[in-house]
Amino acid sequence: MLRNSLIGSLRQIKPILCSQSLRSLSNGANSGLTTIEVDDKSGIATLSMNLPPVNTLTLNLMHDLIDSINQIECNKSRGLILTSSNDKVFSAGLDLKELYKPDQERLKEFWTIFQDLWLALHLCGIPTAAAINGHAPAAGCIMATACEYRVMLPDFVIGVHATRFSFLVSKWMMLSYQSVLPRRIVERALNQGKLFSTQEALEVGLIDEVAGSKKEALAQCAAFIGTFDKANPIARTLTKRMCRDSDVTELLRDRAGDLRACVDYINTPLFQEGLSAHLEGLKEKK
Amino acid sequence: MLRNSLIGSLRQIKPILCSQSLRSLSNGANSGLTTIEVDDKSGIATLSMNLPPVNTLTLNLMHDLIDSINQIECNKSRGLILTSSNDKVFSAGLDLKELYKPDQERLKEFWTIFQDLWLALHLCGIPTAAAINGHAPAAGCIMATACEYRVMLPDFVIGVHATRFSFLVSKWMMLSYQSVLPRRIVERALNQGKLFSTQEALEVGLIDEVAGSKKEALAQCAAFIGTFDKANPIARTLTKRMCRDSDVTELLRDRAGDLRACVDYINTPLFQEGLSAHLEGLKEKK
Amino acid sequence: MLRNSLIGSLRQIKPILCSQSLRSLSNGANSGLTTIEVDDKSGIATLSMNLPPVNTLTLNLMHDLIDSINQIECNKSRGLILTSSNDKVFSAGLDLKELYKPDQERLKEFWTIFQDLWLALHLCGIPTAAAINGHAPAAGCIMATACEYRVMLPDFVIGVHATRFSFLVSKWMMLSYQSVLPRRIVERALNQGKLFSTQEALEVGLIDEVAGSKKEALAQCAAFIGTFDKANPIARTLTKRMCRDSDVTELLRDRAGDLRACVDYINTPLFQEGLSAHLEGLKEKK
Repeated sequence: MLRNSLIGSLRQIKPILCSQSLRSLSNGANSGLTTIEVDDKSGIATLSMNLPPVNTLTLNLMHDLIDSINQIECNKSRGLILTSSNDKVFSAGLDLKELYKPDQERLKEFWTIFQDLWLALHLCGIPTAAAINGHAPAAGCIMATACEYRVMLPDFVIGVHATRFSFLVSKWMMLSYQSVLPRRIVERALNQGKLFSTQEALEVGLIDEVAGSKKEALAQCAAFIGTFDKANPIARTLTKRMCRDSDVTELLRDRAGDLRACVDYINTPLFQEGLSAHLEGLKEKK
Repeated sequence: MLRNSLIGSLRQIKPILCSQSLRSLSNGANSGLTTIEVDDKSGIATLSMNLPPVNTLTLNLMHDLIDSINQIECNKSRGLILTSSNDKVFSAGLDLKELYKPDQERLKEFWTIFQDLWLALHLCGIPTAAAINGHAPAAGCIMATACEYRVMLPDFVIGVHATRFSFLVSKWMMLSYQSVLPRRIVERALNQGKLFSTQEALEVGLIDEVAGSKKEALAQCAAFIGTFDKANPIARTLTKRMCRDSDVTELLRDRAGDLRACVDYINTPLFQEGLSAHLEGLKEKK
Repeated sequence: MLRNSLIGSLRQIKPILCSQSLRSLSNGANSGLTTIEVDDKSGIATLSMNLPPVNTLTLNLMHDLIDSINQIECNKSRGLILTSSNDKVFSAGLDLKELYKPDQERLKEFWTIFQDLWLALHLCGIPTAAAINGHAPAAGCIMATACEYRVMLPDFVIGVHATRFSFLVSKWMMLSYQSVLPRRIVERALNQGKLFSTQEALEVGLIDEVAGSKKEALAQCAAFIGTFDKANPIARTLTKRMCRDSDVTELLRDRAGDLRACVDYINTPLFQEGLSAHLEGLKEKK
């Protein structure tokens, strides 16, 4: 029953070997905001976010990411490394302008595709690793925690600093953080809106290794993907999804409810005022 | 739905900014067993337990603690530091005399107010820290784990040693312990009835820092409270409660059941005999 | 309700002091594949697996283990130490030949008795420790994690390497692993099918101590069992079962479903082919 229901329910989201169903969610052509390079020798695909200036997760970038993740899965790559073509920022997180005085229909589309992106990455059938070659705040961090391994370059920051702009993360985002960090650290970091330095992230376990360069980071991610060589790929995929089942179930059992709650929260004056002040602060920084 | 139900259900327990509902639970005047000092400069309130000889959690002390926590929350303090005016004992835990050959109605009142105290502290809207300036066994430890940070003075002990007097803690008490410590450590410590020395508590993460004096401990707690300065206070409160939601839900979904099970257990000969032997042992120590 | 339901539901599985109900599950005489030695001085029972060449968990060995665990519990031993009379292998895990082209009725019996064995060990009323004096792969590791403490000799391996022979472990097996290791480590190790060296196992917390010899390992296990001397034995048993309640509930709420899902999975061509290749590999090694 368990094994059946797991395989069954996960099959409804994305089939084991190829995610046609998810791909169809993100209809329309790829806008070219991501690039995929497959290493012929290793069979590992490197997926780069490529939206200047800071890989903000816009509707289009999220669409292209989902499309690329599905392509990589379907093309029988040996693993997926998520990275950035920008050498300062991995991803700046969600496009906050979409949350400010939002058009309601567009906001729903925006949040839904963010849910899709997290599910695509979190349940990706092949081994995944993040080569974090720049800052990874907020949803940039959530994407990294949805991978199975994290290698980061020095002198950057990573963390979910949502409380700094009055945002309340969804429970599945908290669980994604908690799948990597101890419960006590998660609560404190989320409450503070803490951005960890590379060194701090290593110490608490938010990242697994530090690399001297992007090249080194990619090599370390590839070495991690190599640790699965003795595992049967399908048994590995099913095992990964079983381990992540309870986190994913939190979202899947009521996606519409998560969307509604999130939209309601975003529309509160509390959040709109907090976000407005935050956006002003960002402008002044420039 | 999640966000709504979280805010909704928590709002029913205690409103976000001021806990009138809980306050009304603890009707009657404050007996003066606690004192509140607010630092004008920092805005931080220090809540001291002040019931000689060892801050045993009697009905009256628990009543005053709840009342004080609510006052501090309502008065827009920047944070709450829980400490003791006794320099040897933080709190000796529940008044075990209330559990020995108990009057049934009074026992129900006693356990219910203990549930209330834990909820008030665990869900307190503002940042909380414990300056543990003395021994903190049993419910003294549970109160400390309900805070967000723990600073302790050397040469004291802390831990839930319930099995030593035959007590079976409630699941929500275990979850409170587990919100701070790894699962493996929790099971072993609860089974042993382990009292950790200050140094041992630091090593496993039961406390966060050691302080050389009470003054230093208060300063370290204040520094922790300062780490939330960049977070929006309401988003912080909602985030804290989301992180603690599953622990609290364990109690809230069946408070009456927890009460009944606890009362039933306390009335068993097993427990009454174990407690009797324990109380005899304490007398001999004196 | 909680306390009642816990005691109640656990009482249905195995009574607090003596497990007649479980004993009756394993009907038939003990085949002598295990030996029990009780130390008259300490009151601790050492349970040795004694099935050459590698303590493979056959139907008969599992039957005898359950029988011995129940005997030790009923005879008021002070604790149970699980070990091997083989000085190279603690246990090689489940008898994989039972999973290859299986007779369906026998497979059901086999998986059910493995569930029984895990429950008997996981819920054992007295303190348990594993003296791991040899390799402990797969179900050998799961048995060790079902104990409360693990002492291991150097230069052996321990871990759940199921993905290497295409097996998908049940959720309760994952939870047993997770009761000892952090979530992040569990997912990675299960996905990789990782076998930890003694030193690696110590570093992540999969084992608690390393011992220089089997004699030392038994002494260290006995010392651990001695840490419960101040705890009331019945309160200790109830506390242990409360801590393990959520893991056990995962299996108990649908044992038949777990059996069905497992049998279905074992019958898939994917698993049969993976197992066949694995068994061929083992033959070649010899």
